[in-house]
Amino acid sequence: MKFEFRVEAHQNKARTGRLETPHGSVSTPLFMPVGTQATVKGLSNRELAEVGSQIVLGNTYHLMLRPGSERVAALGGLHGFTGWRRPWLTDSGGFQVMSLGHRRVISEEGVEFSNHLNGDRILLTPERSIEVQQELGADIIMAFDECPPYPAGRDYLENSLERTLRWLERSLAAKSRADQALFGIAQGGVELDLRRRSTLETIKIDLPGYAIGGLAVGEPKEKMIPAVDLSTDLLPADRPRYLMGVGHPEDLVAGVALGVDMFDCVYPTRTGRFGYALVDSGRLNLSSARYKDDPEPIDPGCDCYACQNHSRAYITHLVRAGEMLGLRLLSLHNIRYLHRLMERARAAIAAGSYGDFARDFAARRWPEGEPGWFVGAMQRAEMW
Amino acid sequence: MKFEFRVEAHQNKARTGRLETPHGSVSTPLFMPVGTQATVKGLSNRELAEVGSQIVLGNTYHLMLRPGSERVAALGGLHGFTGWRRPWLTDSGGFQVMSLGHRRVISEEGVEFSNHLNGDRILLTPERSIEVQQELGADIIMAFDECPPYPAGRDYLENSLERTLRWLERSLAAKSRADQALFGIAQGGVELDLRRRSTLETIKIDLPGYAIGGLAVGEPKEKMIPAVDLSTDLLPADRPRYLMGVGHPEDLVAGVALGVDMFDCVYPTRTGRFGYALVDSGRLNLSSARYKDDPEPIDPGCDCYACQNHSRAYITHLVRAGEMLGLRLLSLHNIRYLHRLMERARAAIAAGSYGDFARDFAARRWPEGEPGWFVGAMQRAEMW
Repeated sequence: MKFEFRVEAHQNKARTGRLETPHGSVSTPLFMPVGTQATVKGLSNRELAEVGSQIVLGNTYHLMLRPGSERVAALGGLHGFTGWRRPWLTDSGGFQVMSLGHRRVISEEGVEFSNHLNGDRILLTPERSIEVQQELGADIIMAFDECPPYPAGRDYLENSLERTLRWLERSLAAKSRADQALFGIAQGGVELDLRRRSTLETIKIDLPGYAIGGLAVGEPKEKMIPAVDLSTDLLPADRPRYLMGVGHPEDLVAGVALGVDMFDCVYPTRTGRFGYALVDSGRLNLSSARYKDDPEPIDPGCDCYACQNHSRAYITHLVRAGEMLGLRLLSLHNIRYLHRLMERARAAIAAGSYGDFARDFAARRWPEGEPGWFVGAMQRAEMW
Repeated sequence: MKFEFRVEAHQNKARTGRLETPHGSVSTPLFMPVGTQATVKGLSNRELAEVGSQIVLGNTYHLMLRPGSERVAALGGLHGFTGWRRPWLTDSGGFQVMSLGHRRVISEEGVEFSNHLNGDRILLTPERSIEVQQELGADIIMAFDECPPYPAGRDYLENSLERTLRWLERSLAAKSRADQALFGIAQGGVELDLRRRSTLETIKIDLPGYAIGGLAVGEPKEKMIPAVDLSTDLLPADRPRYLMGVGHPEDLVAGVALGVDMFDCVYPTRTGRFGYALVDSGRLNLSSARYKDDPEPIDPGCDCYACQNHSRAYITHLVRAGEMLGLRLLSLHNIRYLHRLMERARAAIAAGSYGDFARDFAARRWPEGEPGWFVGAMQRAEMW
C-alpha cells in the first residue's frame, strides 16, 4: 500500500500515474532535482515546493562523507535534517564512486576507493550502501550497482551486469526498514542483448520499482533510445521506471514517450550556474552581452519567480557581476522549466495528445528540423 | 511633502519617526542592507521584504561601472531594473573611490582613479556623481564627498572638509530631479572642532536629511561616540540623520541612543558569507565543527526563515560543504537580526524604555561586563 503505483492514463507506451510514498504521493512522469549535498544548489525548500518539485534526490556518496549518514540519522534523516519533508530518493553511491572516487578497486565484495574530499580509503559494498541509505532515510533507495563507462567492452559489461545482479540480491538482503522502497537497477550498456538479460534477471526480483542504469554516460542518443525502448518493453507495467541521470528536455520528452516515469539530473542547476536559462528553443546564455539591455523575462510564458519578477537584463547583470542571485534565479527557472515540461507531458498523456505535444516541443526546439534520434524515438512510441 | 520626516516619539536624544519617500514611507531608526551591485548579496526581493527591509542602499561607484547608470535608467531606474519597488538610497561613490579605486588623484574638480574592474581612468566629480545618481533614480541620493582615511592629519581633514562643502554646493547645483532627496554629508574625522565646523557649515544648506560621514573607518569606538554625539547635537532635529557605514549591533544600539535615524553596512551579509550568524551574545561561527550535531535553530527567538526551518547542524553542514544555501540563510538571518533590533529599538523609544532595552542588550552581548565606550555612549544619552 505504502508504495503503491497506479497508472492513471496511458497513450501507447507513455503513461501518467501516481506513486505513493510515506511522505506523500507524486505524479509521474516527473523530474527529480538533485540535492547532492542535502541541498538542491541555490534553492530553498520553499522555492523547491513552489517550482513544483515533488521528490528530491540525495547522493549517498556525498552524504556518507559529509555530514555522515549517522549524523543525518540522529538529526531526523534527510527529511528532518534538511526540512524537505516531502519524498526523497537516494542513489546507491555506485555512480559517484566511479566518477569521483580515485584509485578504485572493484571486487566481488564491493568497490574500494579514495574519496575526493580527504583521500581516505573507503570500501562501499551493497550492505554498506543500504546501511547508509537506511540512515539517510529516503522514501526510495537504490540497489548498489556498478555503472560501466561508455564505451566498455562486452566482457566488462557482462561481468559488470552479473555482479550488479548479485549485488542486488545482497542489497535486498541487507535492507531491513519497511518504510523504504528499494529499486533495482538494470545495466548492460547499449548492448541490447546484455540490456535484455540484465533487465529480465533484475525483474525476477519483485521490487516496487526499477531503474534503467548505465545510460546517459556519453553514448550517442541513437544508441540510448533503443536501450530505453527495450527496457520499457521488458519492465513490468505496474511498477515505476526510473531512467537515471537523464535531464535534457528533449531526452525527457522522448523518454516519456517510451514509457519512463522518473528522471533525475544535475543539468538544470549546473547549466544555471554556468549562466544558461532553459527555454523551448534550447538555452539562453545570459552571461552574454546580448541580453544586457533586454527588458523581457527569460520566458514570457513561464510562471516562475525569476520570470515573474526579473528581466533578462537584470539577470545578465547579476551573472556577469558574479552575484549569487543570478545563479539562484537561473537554477530556479531551469528546474521550473523541467517541471512544467513534465506537467504538460502528464496532461498530454491524459488527453491522448502526447504526439502533438512532442511535435510542438520539437518545432520550437529545432525550428530547422528535428534530429533523427528524436523522430526515431517518437516512431518507436508510435506517436509520429 | 514628498520627503517629510516626522519624529513620532523621542526619549532624550533617541527618537523614532517616519520618513516619506516617493516609493513609500519608512520607520526610523532603521538599518539599510547594502545592495552593492543592485542586489543584496544572497537575498531575493521577496526575502528582503519578508525580513523587514524598508530601504536598500545601492553603490554608485559599482553601478556606474557595471551595468552602467544609463542602462539602469533605460530599464526603469533601480526600482524597475531590480524589481525592488520600495525606497532606494544611493551613496555618492566618494567612499568606494577611496577604498577601491587605484592611483587616485584628488583635485578641486573631483577624483580621478583607475577603476577596479578594468583599470580605465575615470573622473568622478560632484556633477557626475549626481548625474549618475539621477540616472539610477534612488529616492535618496548623497552629495559627493571626500571620506578621509583614519588616521588623517588635521591639515588633510581640514582641506578635505572644506572641499566636501564646496562639492556639496556643486552637488546641489547639479541636481535637477524633484523626486529625489539630496542628503549632505558632514566630515571632520574624530577631531571634534573640525566635525563641529563641517556639521555647522553643512546644515547652513537646507536639505531634507544629513549624514554623519567619515566614521567607522578604523577609529576606536571611544573616538567615534563623541563625534556622533556632537553631530546629533548640531544636526536639525526635524531632519533624518544617517550614520554612514555603521552596522555592528552594538553600534546601532549606541547610535540610536544618541539620536541617529539611519544606518547602513555590509556587515550582516559579509559576516554571513564568512559563516557567522548574529545573535544577542555576538556571533556564532557556523563553519565550526562544534555545531555539526546541534539541532537548535540559530536563535530560537528569531522569526526568520532560517530559524523557523533549519537547525544549526544543517546550516553548518551547508557552510562546510561550500553550499550557496548556507550563505543565503546566514545573510537572511543576519539582516533580519538587525531589522529586529531596530524594531525593538523603535518600540522601546515609543514606550520610553530605551535605557532598559540597551541594558538588556548589553547584558546579553557582554555577560562579563559591558565595555566603557558603550556605557559612555549611554551616559551621554542620559539613559544609563
